[in-house]
Amino acid sequence: MINISILGGSGYAGGEIIRILLNHPQVKIQQVTSRKFAGREVSLVHPNLRKLTDLTFIHPEKLSDCDLLFVALPNGDSMGIMKDLQKKAKKIIDLGADFRLHDAKTFTHWYQKEHLASTLLPKFVYGITELHRADLKKASFVACAGCEATVSILTLYPLIKHKIIKEKVIIDAKMSSSQAGMSPSLSTHHPERAGVVRSYMPSGHRHTAEIEQELSVFNKLEVAISATAIDMVRGLLVTIHTIPKDGMEEKDVWKAYRAEYKGEPFIRIVKELQGIYRYPEPKILQGTNFCDIGFELDKATNRLVLIGAIDNLVKGTAGQAVQSMNVMYGFKETTGLMFPGLHPI
Amino acid sequence: MINISILGGSGYAGGEIIRILLNHPQVKIQQVTSRKFAGREVSLVHPNLRKLTDLTFIHPEKLSDCDLLFVALPNGDSMGIMKDLQKKAKKIIDLGADFRLHDAKTFTHWYQKEHLASTLLPKFVYGITELHRADLKKASFVACAGCEATVSILTLYPLIKHKIIKEKVIIDAKMSSSQAGMSPSLSTHHPERAGVVRSYMPSGHRHTAEIEQELSVFNKLEVAISATAIDMVRGLLVTIHTIPKDGMEEKDVWKAYRAEYKGEPFIRIVKELQGIYRYPEPKILQGTNFCDIGFELDKATNRLVLIGAIDNLVKGTAGQAVQSMNVMYGFKETTGLMFPGLHPI
Amino acid sequence: MINISILGGSGYAGGEIIRILLNHPQVKIQQVTSRKFAGREVSLVHPNLRKLTDLTFIHPEKLSDCDLLFVALPNGDSMGIMKDLQKKAKKIIDLGADFRLHDAKTFTHWYQKEHLASTLLPKFVYGITELHRADLKKASFVACAGCEATVSILTLYPLIKHKIIKEKVIIDAKMSSSQAGMSPSLSTHHPERAGVVRSYMPSGHRHTAEIEQELSVFNKLEVAISATAIDMVRGLLVTIHTIPKDGMEEKDVWKAYRAEYKGEPFIRIVKELQGIYRYPEPKILQGTNFCDIGFELDKATNRLVLIGAIDNLVKGTAGQAVQSMNVMYGFKETTGLMFPGLHPI
Amino acid sequence: MINISILGGSGYAGGEIIRILLNHPQVKIQQVTSRKFAGREVSLVHPNLRKLTDLTFIHPEKLSDCDLLFVALPNGDSMGIMKDLQKKAKKIIDLGADFRLHDAKTFTHWYQKEHLASTLLPKFVYGITELHRADLKKASFVACAGCEATVSILTLYPLIKHKIIKEKVIIDAKMSSSQAGMSPSLSTHHPERAGVVRSYMPSGHRHTAEIEQELSVFNKLEVAISATAIDMVRGLLVTIHTIPKDGMEEKDVWKAYRAEYKGEPFIRIVKELQGIYRYPEPKILQGTNFCDIGFELDKATNRLVLIGAIDNLVKGTAGQAVQSMNVMYGFKETTGLMFPGLHPI
Repeated sequence: MINISILGGSGYAGGEIIRILLNHPQVKIQQVTSRKFAGREVSLVHPNLRKLTDLTFIHPEKLSDCDLLFVALPNGDSMGIMKDLQKKAKKIIDLGADFRLHDAKTFTHWYQKEHLASTLLPKFVYGITELHRADLKKASFVACAGCEATVSILTLYPLIKHKIIKEKVIIDAKMSSSQAGMSPSLSTHHPERAGVVRSYMPSGHRHTAEIEQELSVFNKLEVAISATAIDMVRGLLVTIHTIPKDGMEEKDVWKAYRAEYKGEPFIRIVKELQGIYRYPEPKILQGTNFCDIGFELDKATNRLVLIGAIDNLVKGTAGQAVQSMNVMYGFKETTGLMFPGLHPI
Repeated sequence: MINISILGGSGYAGGEIIRILLNHPQVKIQQVTSRKFAGREVSLVHPNLRKLTDLTFIHPEKLSDCDLLFVALPNGDSMGIMKDLQKKAKKIIDLGADFRLHDAKTFTHWYQKEHLASTLLPKFVYGITELHRADLKKASFVACAGCEATVSILTLYPLIKHKIIKEKVIIDAKMSSSQAGMSPSLSTHHPERAGVVRSYMPSGHRHTAEIEQELSVFNKLEVAISATAIDMVRGLLVTIHTIPKDGMEEKDVWKAYRAEYKGEPFIRIVKELQGIYRYPEPKILQGTNFCDIGFELDKATNRLVLIGAIDNLVKGTAGQAVQSMNVMYGFKETTGLMFPGLHPI
Repeated sequence: MINISILGGSGYAGGEIIRILLNHPQVKIQQVTSRKFAGREVSLVHPNLRKLTDLTFIHPEKLSDCDLLFVALPNGDSMGIMKDLQKKAKKIIDLGADFRLHDAKTFTHWYQKEHLASTLLPKFVYGITELHRADLKKASFVACAGCEATVSILTLYPLIKHKIIKEKVIIDAKMSSSQAGMSPSLSTHHPERAGVVRSYMPSGHRHTAEIEQELSVFNKLEVAISATAIDMVRGLLVTIHTIPKDGMEEKDVWKAYRAEYKGEPFIRIVKELQGIYRYPEPKILQGTNFCDIGFELDKATNRLVLIGAIDNLVKGTAGQAVQSMNVMYGFKETTGLMFPGLHPI
Repeated sequence: MINISILGGSGYAGGEIIRILLNHPQVKIQQVTSRKFAGREVSLVHPNLRKLTDLTFIHPEKLSDCDLLFVALPNGDSMGIMKDLQKKAKKIIDLGADFRLHDAKTFTHWYQKEHLASTLLPKFVYGITELHRADLKKASFVACAGCEATVSILTLYPLIKHKIIKEKVIIDAKMSSSQAGMSPSLSTHHPERAGVVRSYMPSGHRHTAEIEQELSVFNKLEVAISATAIDMVRGLLVTIHTIPKDGMEEKDVWKAYRAEYKGEPFIRIVKELQGIYRYPEPKILQGTNFCDIGFELDKATNRLVLIGAIDNLVKGTAGQAVQSMNVMYGFKETTGLMFPGLHPI
């Protein structure tokens, strides 16, 4: 049994960590901080947890020592205090963007600010278990991947590694509203946000950097992301347009995925000939830690279309963090993460 | 051709007035004010009007004289300046709540503030054309009804007048997000607002006062409103639970509605035996000035269930205002208001 | 460990039973039948269960003996075969309407057909644990309540029993599309069904009979239901308009609820002064077995508004059935049913 | 004043033609056919038209001669009867796919059936006014474009013609449920269709053929379409991933669009620096005949992302047909088509 605390527990990611860990048999939630809601019940902000916990938020200044600290702050807020946090907890899992990139210059390029703790960058393991399980077992510090990066990396990784596709991909991402976090604005105002197909970032998405870092295995990968927000609260789907290398057949794609993901508890290859859920579908992944992956080879246009889907707040954020924790502590990797998802929903 | 201006044109009601009047052959939009967007194009805020108008917002201080002024300010903001506005325009249509109630004390009771221009109250005609057409023809000042009051009054009026039902009604209102206006807040934040069935006002809705005022024809009407917000941007449906007087049959209900609404261009009685749109449905009223009304008499429980539906921003707000204007100036009453609505949508 | 089978496993209720029981430590799913999908994988129809089970549907004729049989057939289909089914399983939980009403005449009145097994009616216990826990412990046959009846009964029961309200209630129900089951029709066709506020049953809802049966404690309860379908896949909210007896105060309501539901694991009284989830909200109950209940006393109109919310497929159907099973077998009542729900969703 | 009839008026396209033409001052709707609903009121199927028309459906066998016949039948149904229809009407506008492709072999390749009237193919003008205005003026027979083809062609045409981009494009289309027509199926069943991000056609979309036909101006255009269905009833957005030719700048893109579309009443270039509707958005195009087009040049990845949006049932179908009709008869091109769209919606 370990004691964990959550720094920044009033956001959506923080809420999901609490939800998952309340049912984790080897974890006790010690403290959850919130500047704004200090002293208030956690269930005021996360109403699904009513009667399931009597946790109250504490002010971040009252954070005590713990075994593991989850940091769920806005991007840019953790790098300045990371050294102090490391005195409070021997192990830290940061869900923000600050420690994902190994290279401080790349960070500055994409986030338009200096990195305040670049010496710590090498100490962080990138938190996608499927790629870094061995490192995670020994890790003290983990930087969880961005949600869009997570699903893109998991979908592309076997095909890059096994040289199935050319190193030039276009990621057309369909995004949900929870990805923008909990702060209201006109762009998230229901009458303006409901029903949209909003091209909010046709190019220049920051997760490009993470994806290139993780997937530039043999050659530099060239990634172009276009992100479109649709009327969905939770969920993320990427349609990845790739060019297969000469002579590649469907069976080669299958082989690559099986080679890398056979035995992975949270990866499912979804490619059905029948039924109406023939490809990955975020709708039925809500609340789950699965990453579903599908593909279609189109010989007529010499294109391999990949499709990846996750719940952005679980496999894309909090579930990924708990999966990393399970690996770090040698707990069964699936503990707390086996909710199967709902149908219909 | 008359010159009209709109005081407060950046909100949803203001936007709808502009949309409707851009196609009105007897009206020229002279000025549209916005404190926040002064100097900016109207289509920045109302993107549906792109390329259809080159109007820009002006600061309210620059408001010139005009024939008719539409006032679309937040509740409570027009009463303090109404006397000054009357120097600018001989005719005024106020879309807010300030001049709807004839009695200043009732206003204070429901809005929890003193009325700042109670001497003007008797000069305002309540803007539901179907009830006050004769008065509107001579009116200089009009106070448009609240959206929830509009549909409730129109649905109930013939049955009260013809003594079909007892003077005690329960209005169960299903509301949309545009009714809350254009200001973002946590309660309108998409992840929190999408998919809700939110009992945001189980009792105590302010429109009670308007409904009682308009419908206490013979006896005091007792109105209990419960308002539930659902996942809908535009539209409003009321399910009104009433008790029929002894011996009332379906044909009496039909007779009452026909007596009052025969010839009304914007009222439709919807009660079909076939098809899937057997009762009023706000979905297909979006953009229209119709008020659809239906009913079902349940002898087993001695209850008459009434169903009324409108587009809250058109018949409930801007369309109602334009309909009043048409009557005031002797224009054809339906001018600019005959959009038929879309199906499917 | 018991062996259970599901007769009629390809519908939404059947799918939810499978989902819940796959994680139930004391239950093994032996067989799942489907006439239409016999021989096919269960996950073809219930895609959320991919990789989580290798169950395949069998034809109902191949049903073997088992400890407990869940029957999830369309209304009217189980009564004709119940005697045969009782040879297959000593315990049966029927999720349909056939055995809910104790009185065959009442059944005929509401369902417009003769009851084919009226002698079995007295053997069935009505499956709401909170009202019939003692009987369920000894029960062999259980008839689960209708979803709309479940939430209405749970919301009203303490107030009827403690004589807080008059025996005359109006239930305004907001319904979701999954309640109509899995058969496509024009009325469930997405372009026609999305965005509706459809008064599909202003009066005459069949669940009236169950509610009256369960709640006519001292006097005959008079129940009038109006059901409106809204744009929601899963969830159910009732706004119940009641009249408090003379002198009743809010504290009396609290007292009644506490008296009956203190210690109930799946009932929560939700009545908050702050936050945006101040009353029950089906949105955050998706996948959970909770019934959330709230109320507001409106002295101005002498009305007590009750609000109840559930997930129609869990507490309203499959979760209720599993909860009954847990009680019947002496398992911990909450086993398999503690999913906390998601926020945001 | 011309007399028009509609063959196949009970579908969504037929309904939209009726809606638009009811307000067209130079057109009289003579007959509307429906095999299934013959004898029934048009408003039974198109409930938005209640009280606005007393048209009833007639059986197609009762079709009389008329000036112009709109044919709105399922794909494949018009080619077999086209010769007969040409005896009924001198001018015909076909909204189906049968006469869009000039080449019978290409038709057979994509639609997997023989063309039954290939000799008529050369007589049909492809119905996109912006590309074929001169031909339409003289046309007797018009084949309206597919909705997905319409928006793709309009978005790409100027850039192909002015040699701004390479002849290899990827179209990532976000589709609505009304595109699938009015026939219910499990895939359109609300619980299954709501909330989806369904990769229903990752490759192989039939509209590829039309787009290649219209845009292979200098060289063969290579088009790869991936179509994803999202939770939207009406609307269509394409994100088109293209590669700019060497040295192309944003101003070249602007120049090409202006050169082709200056003066076009239904094309708007939408590329704003401020506001939340910075790019085309189908949400606010519902009911309109606009095609909104935007773009972003991403130098980092040498990519030009194009964004096009329409209402699939108006500019993509019925509005396009009426626009063609207006051109054919020399009516003002915008007649009946100037509904500005709603905001918010």
